[in-house]
Amino acid sequence: MRNSSRPRGSIYLPTKLSDNPKPNQAKMSLKSKLMMEIAEPMTSSGNKVTVVGIGQVGMACAFSILTQSVSSEVALIDVNADKLQGEMLDLQHGSAFMKNAQIQASTDFAVSAGSRLIVITAGVRQKEGESRLNLVQRNCDILKGIIPKLVEHSPDCILLMVSNPVDIMTYVAWKISGLPKNRVIGSGTNLDSSRFRFLMSQRLGVAPTSCHGWIIGEHGDSSVPVWSGVNVAGVRLAEINPSIGTADDDEKWGELHHEVVNSAYEVIKLKGYTSWAIGLSVASLASALLRNTYNVHAVSTLVTGEHGISEEVYLSLPCVLGRNGVSHVVKQILTEAETKKLQDSAKIMSEVQAGIKF
Amino acid sequence: MRNSSRPRGSIYLPTKLSDNPKPNQAKMSLKSKLMMEIAEPMTSSGNKVTVVGIGQVGMACAFSILTQSVSSEVALIDVNADKLQGEMLDLQHGSAFMKNAQIQASTDFAVSAGSRLIVITAGVRQKEGESRLNLVQRNCDILKGIIPKLVEHSPDCILLMVSNPVDIMTYVAWKISGLPKNRVIGSGTNLDSSRFRFLMSQRLGVAPTSCHGWIIGEHGDSSVPVWSGVNVAGVRLAEINPSIGTADDDEKWGELHHEVVNSAYEVIKLKGYTSWAIGLSVASLASALLRNTYNVHAVSTLVTGEHGISEEVYLSLPCVLGRNGVSHVVKQILTEAETKKLQDSAKIMSEVQAGIKF
Amino acid sequence: MRNSSRPRGSIYLPTKLSDNPKPNQAKMSLKSKLMMEIAEPMTSSGNKVTVVGIGQVGMACAFSILTQSVSSEVALIDVNADKLQGEMLDLQHGSAFMKNAQIQASTDFAVSAGSRLIVITAGVRQKEGESRLNLVQRNCDILKGIIPKLVEHSPDCILLMVSNPVDIMTYVAWKISGLPKNRVIGSGTNLDSSRFRFLMSQRLGVAPTSCHGWIIGEHGDSSVPVWSGVNVAGVRLAEINPSIGTADDDEKWGELHHEVVNSAYEVIKLKGYTSWAIGLSVASLASALLRNTYNVHAVSTLVTGEHGISEEVYLSLPCVLGRNGVSHVVKQILTEAETKKLQDSAKIMSEVQAGIKF
Amino acid sequence: MRNSSRPRGSIYLPTKLSDNPKPNQAKMSLKSKLMMEIAEPMTSSGNKVTVVGIGQVGMACAFSILTQSVSSEVALIDVNADKLQGEMLDLQHGSAFMKNAQIQASTDFAVSAGSRLIVITAGVRQKEGESRLNLVQRNCDILKGIIPKLVEHSPDCILLMVSNPVDIMTYVAWKISGLPKNRVIGSGTNLDSSRFRFLMSQRLGVAPTSCHGWIIGEHGDSSVPVWSGVNVAGVRLAEINPSIGTADDDEKWGELHHEVVNSAYEVIKLKGYTSWAIGLSVASLASALLRNTYNVHAVSTLVTGEHGISEEVYLSLPCVLGRNGVSHVVKQILTEAETKKLQDSAKIMSEVQAGIKF
Repeated sequence: MRNSSRPRGSIYLPTKLSDNPKPNQAKMSLKSKLMMEIAEPMTSSGNKVTVVGIGQVGMACAFSILTQSVSSEVALIDVNADKLQGEMLDLQHGSAFMKNAQIQASTDFAVSAGSRLIVITAGVRQKEGESRLNLVQRNCDILKGIIPKLVEHSPDCILLMVSNPVDIMTYVAWKISGLPKNRVIGSGTNLDSSRFRFLMSQRLGVAPTSCHGWIIGEHGDSSVPVWSGVNVAGVRLAEINPSIGTADDDEKWGELHHEVVNSAYEVIKLKGYTSWAIGLSVASLASALLRNTYNVHAVSTLVTGEHGISEEVYLSLPCVLGRNGVSHVVKQILTEAETKKLQDSAKIMSEVQAGIKF
Repeated sequence: MRNSSRPRGSIYLPTKLSDNPKPNQAKMSLKSKLMMEIAEPMTSSGNKVTVVGIGQVGMACAFSILTQSVSSEVALIDVNADKLQGEMLDLQHGSAFMKNAQIQASTDFAVSAGSRLIVITAGVRQKEGESRLNLVQRNCDILKGIIPKLVEHSPDCILLMVSNPVDIMTYVAWKISGLPKNRVIGSGTNLDSSRFRFLMSQRLGVAPTSCHGWIIGEHGDSSVPVWSGVNVAGVRLAEINPSIGTADDDEKWGELHHEVVNSAYEVIKLKGYTSWAIGLSVASLASALLRNTYNVHAVSTLVTGEHGISEEVYLSLPCVLGRNGVSHVVKQILTEAETKKLQDSAKIMSEVQAGIKF
Repeated sequence: MRNSSRPRGSIYLPTKLSDNPKPNQAKMSLKSKLMMEIAEPMTSSGNKVTVVGIGQVGMACAFSILTQSVSSEVALIDVNADKLQGEMLDLQHGSAFMKNAQIQASTDFAVSAGSRLIVITAGVRQKEGESRLNLVQRNCDILKGIIPKLVEHSPDCILLMVSNPVDIMTYVAWKISGLPKNRVIGSGTNLDSSRFRFLMSQRLGVAPTSCHGWIIGEHGDSSVPVWSGVNVAGVRLAEINPSIGTADDDEKWGELHHEVVNSAYEVIKLKGYTSWAIGLSVASLASALLRNTYNVHAVSTLVTGEHGISEEVYLSLPCVLGRNGVSHVVKQILTEAETKKLQDSAKIMSEVQAGIKF
Repeated sequence: MRNSSRPRGSIYLPTKLSDNPKPNQAKMSLKSKLMMEIAEPMTSSGNKVTVVGIGQVGMACAFSILTQSVSSEVALIDVNADKLQGEMLDLQHGSAFMKNAQIQASTDFAVSAGSRLIVITAGVRQKEGESRLNLVQRNCDILKGIIPKLVEHSPDCILLMVSNPVDIMTYVAWKISGLPKNRVIGSGTNLDSSRFRFLMSQRLGVAPTSCHGWIIGEHGDSSVPVWSGVNVAGVRLAEINPSIGTADDDEKWGELHHEVVNSAYEVIKLKGYTSWAIGLSVASLASALLRNTYNVHAVSTLVTGEHGISEEVYLSLPCVLGRNGVSHVVKQILTEAETKKLQDSAKIMSEVQAGIKF
């Protein structure tokens, strides 16, 4: 089977080029006068990323991955064929400015074949008055329709869940996929941690990447800031200010965590959705996973057995990321209060999960 | 006047941090225990870019400039304070993933002070049944309220117009700004050319950056593809297929230009607006302008005297771009038909411009 | 077989760490307290590059590939174990500044296992009074000792020859390797072309990447500048100055080609060797090959059947490069004189090749 | 005075192009037919870096800065005109692969005019049996001939010293230059720290950028590892292994510091010099200084008053770096032993400095 004549931006959706076979045939004429074929081009770059769901979050993920050259090959999947075609064309029109990255899109899962990494942003939002379990069930039903097809086309892929509630959805994805736990990851508190580091940088006048701090646990309201590890150049702020993060702290550093928790709500209130920061956060994870760097990021992972958690749930902990997904989990030294918070989250999530019909 | 205690993401809009003076004061305490000040930090990076208008186009410009490290300092301006704050926060939350770039935003033009480059995407859209002149007049009125303030705060800036109709709006911006013509530029057909190169790459199976072709003239419907210059590795397609681009061409290469013209309409129809490709196109121009590379791009420039055009209008031609804006215009060798098209565009635009009330 | 405890910078050469088993064992203790293993890390990044020969050229290739993030995994091979260890350590000490790229080195070819691309810079220099054939034979003998082992450890690799005389050495490598012709490539005149474009940029005051020109044929003295394709923004300089490149040209543009030919000699005379430009040139090829971009570069390829050449020789022509090596050769439209030069080179090279003992 | 016709790679050293005025004049003819000048191009990019001394260290600095796009404009200065011309040409030939960066070189200090950052790698090496003071005096004499001219041409520059012994040479440069202390910096232990982080990454199987550790004090033998700050994801290794870094440590983590101290000697023994890691280390500092990021790096700064040091000496401490040089020094919490080591280094350096004849 030869595929060298297939347009390289490989569009599964019907396009004008392929609608009219005659010019196509004629086209070969100039092409064959211009170039002699030596060997069939390969269609795969070996670092293909598929993004499922092309809302604001999905597109920010795809665009961050492309503009930061994390991958040179991105496929988009969605049920909305029109928007899909529009987003694909808009990206393709700029491919000369993205090191000639190749962008494909289709409503057909075959477009994802051979992906190294699959980022899932698909899902529905909570309806007014809807219970959490109901929301989870609806999103679970969506994943049941998506994940088996994705895994079938890319059996060696790593699944990176972004859909919310991300920890439970990552658990669901793991269950449905049948993949080993190291290859099913949730974007988790990598974003919360980067928000924390930005706020810290504002207070101190130091670059975010030189401000170190880890938010772990459940992504969102019940996340846990690990104050003992917050440092600049290895100097723990807790050593300078022992009451940091507590109610006794005159400087109210605890507000930074409250701001992190409120961030998503605030940005959604102000602009209607969040996009850029989550896109960049996902691209940073994709870079570690595809380039096999062993960088440590706070991502959602199966935490059974960690910090006294007995339930089978996903929560964010600092993880070493590489081409095999999560290779190690860093064992942070937590306070009793911090551990309790994690265990409480685990319990609540486990209860919700118990109600899911797979 | 000391500014070292000002948060580095410098927010003009009220934020929680500055609402409460007490924690602020307390904050200094930990900071001063952690760090000893040696000298006041500088607030300027020397490569500041301001983006005016934060719709989909403005934000795609800002995000492309930041993620591709074209500038490490971006200011946003808009009249919508809420959305502005939301977009700023969303970018700031990801600054650790953008080499610690600094993002500011304000409804106050002072936020743009000291910009090297100002990208203007503000403007209204055509209302149903509205005449072109009426649209131009409304956008002109907006520019009158914006540009003098921008130039006042950044007298050495380069103005890069993106608002449509871009050629006339660039002329208007030049008139209002009082800046020399080399420092007032329109994004013009840089995007049209990149769309053309992508479509060419699809037909040939060659990377867009190795497919060469120039679309000049008026951005949009009446743009002109210069077929004589279309080449791969210096091999002119017109030498292989002399009827290329004409009605006689069996392979219908002319369709590529039609597709380019339809691109914006098609993408808008499919996804509601265009964003990624124009953002990337603007970032490529910003890179040439800020890094002083002397790259050649098709941008809208004052063309009086070029190709027999006598009117005072802006149209796209290949221009050499550097830190002084447009230093040279490349004199392409055009056919009579191509020249005529340019002259016709010039005439029509000049007539519209005659009706503008400054 | 577990390899997770192997240091990630995987050093085959003896190092202090592995000399002393006791601390090693003890080491696990802190590591195991710090981190819990979830899955074995993968050792391969999927984009591994091996550089054979670590002289100035080899190291400039490796450093360019690493600093420009073309690959995140580089292995070095040489016979000089001391220098090899020194270069590896020097690169590893900077890996935090190269996105955590992984660098290995060994005198044992096993270190190259699983390479996607192998860059060969090994070879001896011409001795005074030595015939070309003699030099070629000595380098051929070296390749006979190297290439079978490389191909054995990386059967799917692309071979990129840099050793001089590059065209003949690429032919030799192809013969010895048994690989299909599309996967054995010489760095050829990609460097000559970039030198030409730089000199052109100096004359015109335009960025090198906006100056287009192709040098083809034999790398070095008998290379061929294709004047018909030299252009800026699609404007052929030959249309402005029809005598360009000939003796009749008042502006003596032909000097640019003479300067290109003299470049290597001049740089070697001045600094003793060439390194930076060839390193960057190779990195640009590596980027196209690994990222599967289909960019067109002038590289040495088997030209039998092209431009009336009947001999089985390698010469540089513009080639489309991707993950399958050379997929297409661009058929330039050459003058009779240009074609004759190529055919003459082919004849001479074929004669030299006839004398080689494989 | 017009400079638009000056070749953009601006060569002060005589080149063929400018030797022969006739072709030059003729050249304008094609250029003027090809392009119409709109405005004079600017010669400055605003982020110019000058590298003084083009040995292996200086060239690795320049090449790292160029390939990582830290600056788009680099000038080289040395007394060896031939090597200088050779290195300049070799870099220029690759400028198409370095985003069209502009490279200049001259034995005349005028080439450095308008630099934002000046990296000084010039200096002589210790002769056998030479006293440290004698070496310092000889290098001091060299700086006396260099620095006043550099400061004259770039009064707003930041001086970054790399020449060894770097701490004393930075002190000397500060004294000679008359610049404020925040704008005279030594590359110091930024490299030692990155070596430490790499060795740590090897032991743990975690990316160097996720391994945190700070080496401070005197660059070289008497540097001080601050074990209290060594951490992964905020988990202090000292909390897991309280004897870390001491003689009582079964895992002998202290060996990592010994290896760091031996690194330079070992690499020099193995390959003859160090180059790549110091070049990358300097580029990382240049990025923070030029892009105004406020990143924290361990660099040599005037430490009078810090950690009980009363002498006027330069030593490395974690510093916040931006466009104004060092804005803050981080006050690490050191053990008595660590503080004592710093104070001892300060004393010894002060004694050496007392003998210098300025």
